[in-house]
Amino acid sequence: MIVLVLNCGSSSLKYQVLDMKSDDNYSLLAKGLVERIGEKMGALTHRVPDHDKYTVEMPIPDHTVGIKAVLDLLVSKEHGVLKSLDEIQAVGHRVAHGGEYFKGSSLITPQSQEEIEKLCVLAPLHNPANLLGIKAIKELMPQVPQVATFDTAFHQTMPDYAYTYAIPYEYYEKYAVRRYGFHGTSHKFVAAAAAAFAGIDLNNSRIITCHLGNGSSITAVKDGKCIDTSMGFTPQEGVPMGTRSGTVDPTIMSYVAEKENLTHKDVEKILNKKSGLLGISGVSSDCRDIEEAAKAGNVRASLAQDVLCYAIKKIIGAYTAALGGVDLIAFTGGIGENSAPTRFAAIQGLEYLGIEFDEAVNKTIHGTEAMISKPTSKVKVCVMPTNEELVIARDTMNIVKSLK
Amino acid sequence: MIVLVLNCGSSSLKYQVLDMKSDDNYSLLAKGLVERIGEKMGALTHRVPDHDKYTVEMPIPDHTVGIKAVLDLLVSKEHGVLKSLDEIQAVGHRVAHGGEYFKGSSLITPQSQEEIEKLCVLAPLHNPANLLGIKAIKELMPQVPQVATFDTAFHQTMPDYAYTYAIPYEYYEKYAVRRYGFHGTSHKFVAAAAAAFAGIDLNNSRIITCHLGNGSSITAVKDGKCIDTSMGFTPQEGVPMGTRSGTVDPTIMSYVAEKENLTHKDVEKILNKKSGLLGISGVSSDCRDIEEAAKAGNVRASLAQDVLCYAIKKIIGAYTAALGGVDLIAFTGGIGENSAPTRFAAIQGLEYLGIEFDEAVNKTIHGTEAMISKPTSKVKVCVMPTNEELVIARDTMNIVKSLK
Repeated sequence: MIVLVLNCGSSSLKYQVLDMKSDDNYSLLAKGLVERIGEKMGALTHRVPDHDKYTVEMPIPDHTVGIKAVLDLLVSKEHGVLKSLDEIQAVGHRVAHGGEYFKGSSLITPQSQEEIEKLCVLAPLHNPANLLGIKAIKELMPQVPQVATFDTAFHQTMPDYAYTYAIPYEYYEKYAVRRYGFHGTSHKFVAAAAAAFAGIDLNNSRIITCHLGNGSSITAVKDGKCIDTSMGFTPQEGVPMGTRSGTVDPTIMSYVAEKENLTHKDVEKILNKKSGLLGISGVSSDCRDIEEAAKAGNVRASLAQDVLCYAIKKIIGAYTAALGGVDLIAFTGGIGENSAPTRFAAIQGLEYLGIEFDEAVNKTIHGTEAMISKPTSKVKVCVMPTNEELVIARDTMNIVKSLK
Repeated sequence: MIVLVLNCGSSSLKYQVLDMKSDDNYSLLAKGLVERIGEKMGALTHRVPDHDKYTVEMPIPDHTVGIKAVLDLLVSKEHGVLKSLDEIQAVGHRVAHGGEYFKGSSLITPQSQEEIEKLCVLAPLHNPANLLGIKAIKELMPQVPQVATFDTAFHQTMPDYAYTYAIPYEYYEKYAVRRYGFHGTSHKFVAAAAAAFAGIDLNNSRIITCHLGNGSSITAVKDGKCIDTSMGFTPQEGVPMGTRSGTVDPTIMSYVAEKENLTHKDVEKILNKKSGLLGISGVSSDCRDIEEAAKAGNVRASLAQDVLCYAIKKIIGAYTAALGGVDLIAFTGGIGENSAPTRFAAIQGLEYLGIEFDEAVNKTIHGTEAMISKPTSKVKVCVMPTNEELVIARDTMNIVKSLK
């Protein structure tokens, strides 16, 4: 089954075309990026494996025009990978927020689309953009079934005591304020793939998945199901990120707000855009820049690294307690897959859990799956590159197959 | 040495009179409480061991009048415990905030008093009240040396990566925004007393002290020194408390604020006074009421208990990671000393650390020191009633002795 996977932002969209023979037998036909939708001049970058990338500039007033351009390319003589658009049997979308309604991927129907629209209140930047993609496909390929895969769905198995905040309960009842968690598709993929890689039975396992990138979250997975995750009501909670604070004293910012005469919106922006690694270091939000600056002797860059690694270590400790022990720790995401120093520092000191870390191997691993604990280690530690698009394509294929 | 210990709030004050022969050889001569200072009618409750308590109502316009009434009582015929006020050789004060300046208890001098005044900005409700007590003693007993013991001082050994928030660094430089931690005097006492009780060398130990009361904080103590603590810039951070939220997603409240049109001050008040156990349960801020309601089938009271115990368990897990393992976990404070169900639920599932919990003993322990792990347990768990006044009296005695 040929599946088109779409991840639509407000002014850009990513796509992949996958030929899915089964969950684990598939090939990537093409992928690409549409940028600057709605601006004067947009751009489309298209990649076909073993071919040079193709870039074109053109005005892309809206998502429908952008997706139309992608579809045209997919069947074009020069850059195409399909004979006809009829070969596309399903479209899968990444959707940011599924609230408490969506506990797994879902076929797009008038009802489910209405629920996604209702959830815009919880993800005002993302769900509306995701909906633009769904509507564009409906217009361009009205016969093709569409599926939505939610960033939050994997986390819906959390028990109430893990998702309830100790604030007035009416905020949960009135405004649905609770822990949702994000990166669910990535955590789901990585937990399963890491378990298989380590030879551990997912259904009888205690796994901690560390998705560390520009946004970072850590998830406790018991027997294949999420029991806790570090992002919360918003992607602001948890470990420090590129520009996001992660968890802080909840009244810090009202103190600062009074000193600097800031509004709630100002505070949100500071915690979201000016904090994290950038806020501490003053150097950059990029872990690679921080590592370089720290090596060159920048004390605040060093401190930013230390704060991040210490936060990761503490959450690993906390989730080990939540899981009643741990069998496997998996690193993924831009930092998790590529930053050996971060992995080393986060795991250092956890020998009491039965971890024997293999730093000789660890420091050679960049973006490939690998075991970075020693063979004798009671608790396994590995690097597992994430693949959210594959999960979307799998879920889409399986839901669409079940319709027939 | 006879030491008067004072803990002054804005409209009340607690006192103890201790006869200190040495750090561990002392006796309590009297203690009491002055209430409703500044109101139309105040009250003084005075207790002498093995005597009935004595209560008197009288107008107490300010702290000086209140302390004068206490001093008069201490040498009175009927309720006195001293022949003359000259017997009081030192006065020790609990002071809330010592900032980064005070790393231990300090003799009150014009300079240290000025520093405490400067720190009112970080503890606007508490330091000014503490200063009222210091000034009253200066007026009433100008010859007697005074010492201040700070709630924050024990935590000043935290490394920078434990006290730095991932927010713009300028807020640390401009406004001293960082993790300070509170209950330091209690954590200091309990870590040392629990180590001695368990036969562990404090100077070579990894201890987690859980001070759980109306306010709650948990501290990681390595070789007798604090390396991390759950309260932060304010006493708002960490585990859920009676009416305080503890840690939450840092942007939750700006979401709620927008919905309900709340100011920063409103938000602070909600997180401080209407959250925690009260917020979740809607029943009470008191752990005992929550336990009863839960037993009677109240689902939200049950949830409040679960949220609290799960939060404690996760912090114990996190601090075990920070310490690189744990030798001893000590419970103290109103809840920690008295709530067997909370201790049980917080420790359950931590068997992977080598804890063998002794529930048969645990459920019999209320407010007395006791080992609640089995003798074979690799990691010890105990209950240790706190005694902050004793720490203040000890520090006061030792500092005043060193002057001579």
